[in-house]
Amino acid sequence: MKAALIIIGNEILSGRTQDKNLSYLANWLNEIGIQLSEVRVIRDEEKAIIDTVNHLRSEYDYVFTTGGIGPTHDDITSLSIARAFGVELEINDKALAILKEYYKDGELTEARMKMTMIPVGAELVDNPVSKAPGFKMDNVFVMAGIPSIMQGMLEGARRFLKGGDVVKSMSIDVFTPESNVAQALTDLQKKYDDVEIGSYPFSKDNRFGTTLVMRSSNEKRLHQCDEELKELMKEYDTNY
Amino acid sequence: MKAALIIIGNEILSGRTQDKNLSYLANWLNEIGIQLSEVRVIRDEEKAIIDTVNHLRSEYDYVFTTGGIGPTHDDITSLSIARAFGVELEINDKALAILKEYYKDGELTEARMKMTMIPVGAELVDNPVSKAPGFKMDNVFVMAGIPSIMQGMLEGARRFLKGGDVVKSMSIDVFTPESNVAQALTDLQKKYDDVEIGSYPFSKDNRFGTTLVMRSSNEKRLHQCDEELKELMKEYDTNY
Repeated sequence: MKAALIIIGNEILSGRTQDKNLSYLANWLNEIGIQLSEVRVIRDEEKAIIDTVNHLRSEYDYVFTTGGIGPTHDDITSLSIARAFGVELEINDKALAILKEYYKDGELTEARMKMTMIPVGAELVDNPVSKAPGFKMDNVFVMAGIPSIMQGMLEGARRFLKGGDVVKSMSIDVFTPESNVAQALTDLQKKYDDVEIGSYPFSKDNRFGTTLVMRSSNEKRLHQCDEELKELMKEYDTNY
Repeated sequence: MKAALIIIGNEILSGRTQDKNLSYLANWLNEIGIQLSEVRVIRDEEKAIIDTVNHLRSEYDYVFTTGGIGPTHDDITSLSIARAFGVELEINDKALAILKEYYKDGELTEARMKMTMIPVGAELVDNPVSKAPGFKMDNVFVMAGIPSIMQGMLEGARRFLKGGDVVKSMSIDVFTPESNVAQALTDLQKKYDDVEIGSYPFSKDNRFGTTLVMRSSNEKRLHQCDEELKELMKEYDTNY
């Protein structure tokens, strides 16, 4: 099972805000056997949202969006999603009931009413943090951009998601530059075509090192690969 | 002038590594009048790289890629870029000279020789940190994924880049939920169509607040908008 994430927000693209949702979603999906396979960060522009959503929802099992479902003028995600699916954006009775209960009399202003507008045919995704819900339209999950709210909504989205094989990972750090171990890794990767072996250089305490990451849905092969890798690394790092 | 960034790396998509290049590049480009308009995070897969590069290089003035130009088996960016442009990947004499100078006799192994392989027709982009260069192919800049190296390469890429109008930004924090100020912002945005006004909720010390960001290449209008916004915010926050 494969998923894509669309991060909608000029504030990410301007460099003002550092995204925190990508890695959280990736790890959360991993645990239920869904692989995050592509991410796009796009501007708060209707055409960009429509084109991106329509392309990715046909390519992946699930698409998640973050950002742009709040009450202000720059929140145009819900309307754009409705247009991507060719449906109307209307006041959703359940969403209205939720916000009526949350806000005191007179507090449910026109701006806040915007958050009750949901594409026709969508199912709501609960927001345990600040109540205004996200929604699911076909295989597209529309969530808030604020990390704490997005994380809460993910729990609400859980019941709609069917996971696949869970990919497990193991990793070791070797204190040698990655070019030293490149050939050994190439050979090992050929032998373990069901394990994805990645190599990531780092420097720590003025020494160069390489983190070697193995990922596979076959846990037995993963452990075999790990054993063999450690054996191979004895030549380069006396810790193994 | 508009740019796109392609982050190439399974380690970002698995959630293992938090990307730090997006916000750095965005801010760096802002300062020379280039707007980062789209980002894609894709897997280390040839077809994904070729398709993404070829699509984005026709859409944007500049495309930057990060990741996948090291010495190991999972570093396939240079080859994929060559194929995207329909050219060969060959030993580049300048890159070879740089690495021959950097490594002692016998240290320039087959794995490290991989880092001298550059698409035919590309110009090198200096790497002040670890020497193995990036490169520029037409409007595509191919850089390392490690933030310190990527940041060094950007300085080397500077001479190829032509900036446009510099977009300046101003921002204020208001201690009120964004739904309270939504209508005022909508009205202000209509009045200032050359200023992009963004609204970003936050919570601090158990109080809800909203950061209001104004961005424009017209500095005079930006300051006018800022003055007017502060005036409007007096109703919601006694600090103004």
